[in-house]
Amino acid sequence: MTARVIERTPSAVDQPLVIGSILQAGVRTAGEQEIIYADKKRMSYREMAERINRLASALNRAGVKEGDTVAVMDWDSHRYLECFFAIPMMGAVLHTINIRLSPEQVLYTINHAKDDVILVNREFLPLLDAIKDRIETVKTFILLDDGEGPESSSIQTVGEYEQLLAEAAPEYDFPLLDENTRATTFYTTGTTGLPKGVYFSHRQLVLHTFALRSATSGDGHGRFNQTDVYMPITPMFHVHAWGVPYLATLLGVKQVYPGRYLPEVLLKLLVTEKVTFSHCVPTIMQMLLASDAVKKVDLSKWKVIIGGSALPKPMAKAALDLGIDVFTGYGMSETCPVLTLSHLQPDMESWDNDRQADVRSLTGRPVPMVTLRIVDDNMNDVPHDGKSQGEVVVRAPWLTQGYLNDAENSENLWRGGWLHTGDIGVITEDGYLKITDRIKDVIKTGGEWISSLDLEGLVLQHPGVAECAVIGIPDAKWGERPLALVVKKPDADVTEDAIRELVAGYAEKGIISRYGVPEHITFVDSLPRTSVGKLDKKVMRAEHGG
Amino acid sequence: MTARVIERTPSAVDQPLVIGSILQAGVRTAGEQEIIYADKKRMSYREMAERINRLASALNRAGVKEGDTVAVMDWDSHRYLECFFAIPMMGAVLHTINIRLSPEQVLYTINHAKDDVILVNREFLPLLDAIKDRIETVKTFILLDDGEGPESSSIQTVGEYEQLLAEAAPEYDFPLLDENTRATTFYTTGTTGLPKGVYFSHRQLVLHTFALRSATSGDGHGRFNQTDVYMPITPMFHVHAWGVPYLATLLGVKQVYPGRYLPEVLLKLLVTEKVTFSHCVPTIMQMLLASDAVKKVDLSKWKVIIGGSALPKPMAKAALDLGIDVFTGYGMSETCPVLTLSHLQPDMESWDNDRQADVRSLTGRPVPMVTLRIVDDNMNDVPHDGKSQGEVVVRAPWLTQGYLNDAENSENLWRGGWLHTGDIGVITEDGYLKITDRIKDVIKTGGEWISSLDLEGLVLQHPGVAECAVIGIPDAKWGERPLALVVKKPDADVTEDAIRELVAGYAEKGIISRYGVPEHITFVDSLPRTSVGKLDKKVMRAEHGG
Repeated sequence: MTARVIERTPSAVDQPLVIGSILQAGVRTAGEQEIIYADKKRMSYREMAERINRLASALNRAGVKEGDTVAVMDWDSHRYLECFFAIPMMGAVLHTINIRLSPEQVLYTINHAKDDVILVNREFLPLLDAIKDRIETVKTFILLDDGEGPESSSIQTVGEYEQLLAEAAPEYDFPLLDENTRATTFYTTGTTGLPKGVYFSHRQLVLHTFALRSATSGDGHGRFNQTDVYMPITPMFHVHAWGVPYLATLLGVKQVYPGRYLPEVLLKLLVTEKVTFSHCVPTIMQMLLASDAVKKVDLSKWKVIIGGSALPKPMAKAALDLGIDVFTGYGMSETCPVLTLSHLQPDMESWDNDRQADVRSLTGRPVPMVTLRIVDDNMNDVPHDGKSQGEVVVRAPWLTQGYLNDAENSENLWRGGWLHTGDIGVITEDGYLKITDRIKDVIKTGGEWISSLDLEGLVLQHPGVAECAVIGIPDAKWGERPLALVVKKPDADVTEDAIRELVAGYAEKGIISRYGVPEHITFVDSLPRTSVGKLDKKVMRAEHGG
Repeated sequence: MTARVIERTPSAVDQPLVIGSILQAGVRTAGEQEIIYADKKRMSYREMAERINRLASALNRAGVKEGDTVAVMDWDSHRYLECFFAIPMMGAVLHTINIRLSPEQVLYTINHAKDDVILVNREFLPLLDAIKDRIETVKTFILLDDGEGPESSSIQTVGEYEQLLAEAAPEYDFPLLDENTRATTFYTTGTTGLPKGVYFSHRQLVLHTFALRSATSGDGHGRFNQTDVYMPITPMFHVHAWGVPYLATLLGVKQVYPGRYLPEVLLKLLVTEKVTFSHCVPTIMQMLLASDAVKKVDLSKWKVIIGGSALPKPMAKAALDLGIDVFTGYGMSETCPVLTLSHLQPDMESWDNDRQADVRSLTGRPVPMVTLRIVDDNMNDVPHDGKSQGEVVVRAPWLTQGYLNDAENSENLWRGGWLHTGDIGVITEDGYLKITDRIKDVIKTGGEWISSLDLEGLVLQHPGVAECAVIGIPDAKWGERPLALVVKKPDADVTEDAIRELVAGYAEKGIISRYGVPEHITFVDSLPRTSVGKLDKKVMRAEHGG
């Protein structure tokens, strides 16, 4: 890696925060350390550094200039890691395409991001074939080929990645960049509406990496160190795999990229490569915990951050009982993503698994440089008593400045100088955040905020209830009142009164506000869900007047 | 701690890098952790945070405004730590006065920095008495009182620190600062010339802290973690005690401030407070190693960065044999200061002490975000072969932008976009820097650079030589040639030829260039030294035509 020597005056000597410095630190700390792509490729950091130069040379030859957008459609691979560095280091923007979106949504993001080049795994050529005629700005396609996928396609590529690298110059004259240069972009999708683009600068990614380094270092459990072996199990196309590949590279740890997330492949790599540090969503952890294979292997060295949605306490307990060091990470696409981690405090490490699971399944404490508040509708802080609910609003040096070309949603995201997460939470006296609901799902009644999730959890305690969803419906006196939509178990004997009595019992014990006892209860045959299986409260509100 | 809520537009949402975020992270991680001032004061991080608010309130009442310079004259104390935060967080500049300078030099720095307020330990009142009439800008003095020092003084103070804090408001509305706001300033002194002021911004101190966190974290030896206990043994007035108090606060570790460095006090605190992490100069380490007391205590948990000057291998070996985890740190006042640390690589940790001492006494490998080169006179990189010498030039996001109000020296410091350290070094194939000399002391002869320090070391191998200094003298043919000034041991039989033969022998073995064999050897009775005992080569050059 070379860098242009720029003449600078003493007034401009502050070095910019750029992604190249992360690579530089890793390579000089651990040049011979390994980077592995499933069973397909092994290389050293030193080799990777040269390949990053070659990739930049190849992209440059393919016409990529500073300010261009280069998109990737791939499973988690060494190639993706190389793109994490080479593309931003060239001054171009890396667009990580979410290959799980529908073809129409993928098309929307390609056109909206104005992609100039797409690096595409052969497996995703059919997806591009389907939308090819409507792709507006892409001039060049580059093939990523693992031997899987169709033999023919309407997509003309300029060559295959490995071949292009082999032919490219092994040195590249990377520019010295302004730290506010845009480095990455990707799209976040809600249950409805068009995907929204978020974007991060070199400065933001570097600061996120160093704050994450600080938060994950030390002598407690769940820390990430040089002798760890890292394997992501949240995809690289989603918030840069939580930014952990950048951290892993900074540290110079062994990195394992698993390709597509197939349970048997993941488990095999966990064992054969001696993986010790990962991050995944609860669904994947649940799948692993439920498999027979997991009982035959030793996972007692494995540390896993759980994110994407809440880590249920029983799952935390089950993982701990297997020796897995699970804890929660919290953030969102808009926040780069990490805001909090639920490491135990030192005095909690001697607690039994059950008690530890209570803390590990909390949302966590803010990492350095994050300022996090829970506030009421008037932006006043609510008490940190573990009970008072407020919206989570944050500041940090690595939050998206808005949504790409979307002023309206951007203004709603940033209000009064704080990024509004749309999450409702409480903060314990120990300083742990616990997310209780989404703000659009909370029921504001009698001056109090009732968590629909809390209320659903209580109703589900009834042995005859199979499913439950709670929404708020307008009420002249109280503002809103909860409506519980309940699916009975087959042949179960459940009455409205029984449910009300159950919740009233919890209200007497102080577990939920007395305003939470629902007078409106409606039995239904099924609950509307989104395409990914989440409760679709938008539909329920439309149907039931919420 | 409160912060003004500023309305921001989405285009200005990047949070600035400010010192307050370090304090915030430490307090929320470890609110009940201890901070200790010798046997005089114990308090928690939470209490410190309130005292920092009170200090800011008190300073504000004493007239301190944003942009003012507030100076401190104190031993290492909890007060100093509070000043490290409160003064920059107010938007003022902390001037850490070097209380070891002569009164005339102290006066110069006070006037040159345009100090508005001085917080002064009663012990240093006589120093101020002596220069009082010539102090130009100071409007207010505040007394720091540990009961030591004269009862009367001509200096009128507005009150004593603890009393002022007790009377001050416990909350302060700290401003949201631009990250490039100047935070600290202090003066560096060479063997001659006026002190030169260096200065650092909030951004620079924050980035230095996070890079240092990355470099000192992990699972190898010599790391700094939450369960460590920190005590500085390089003064807080000198390059902010290497910035480690900021790192210690970020981590939330127990901090011990020893006051004046008295060997018996240091040893007592090491033992009673279970100190595990320090930094000191070789002189202090030598003093400890030579004391009888050190043999009676267990120092096997103590990690110590040695800096200020090179860690001699025999000292490294002696410390290792006592179980002390010593290693080298390198930097200078101009660099905030840390540039490199000589941690062992993982595979070296099983080596015996003798072999480890070789590595630990090297200058070290660059910490993240530092780009470090060794270059020839034309700024070309010299090979990293452990032999080729070049000047050490650096870039990093935390280097002083120049010397305060001193354009000429600033231009000499920053040339071609690189900070010139004035040090000569080699880099090993492993990437470890080893400083071999100061550039002004290197002898450029026959196209090669001969280290005067290397040559002195070889001459000192002669059993009859007590002291030796080598300087370069002009030579029409070779540019320069070495002149060895030699002090014989009493009654020793040493000849010029014997010294030449000794060096020639090393040259044959390839240990020094054959150009290093000195034809000029002069026996002298003693060598000129500076007030702090360093060889004064400026005087030698003047006397011997160098």
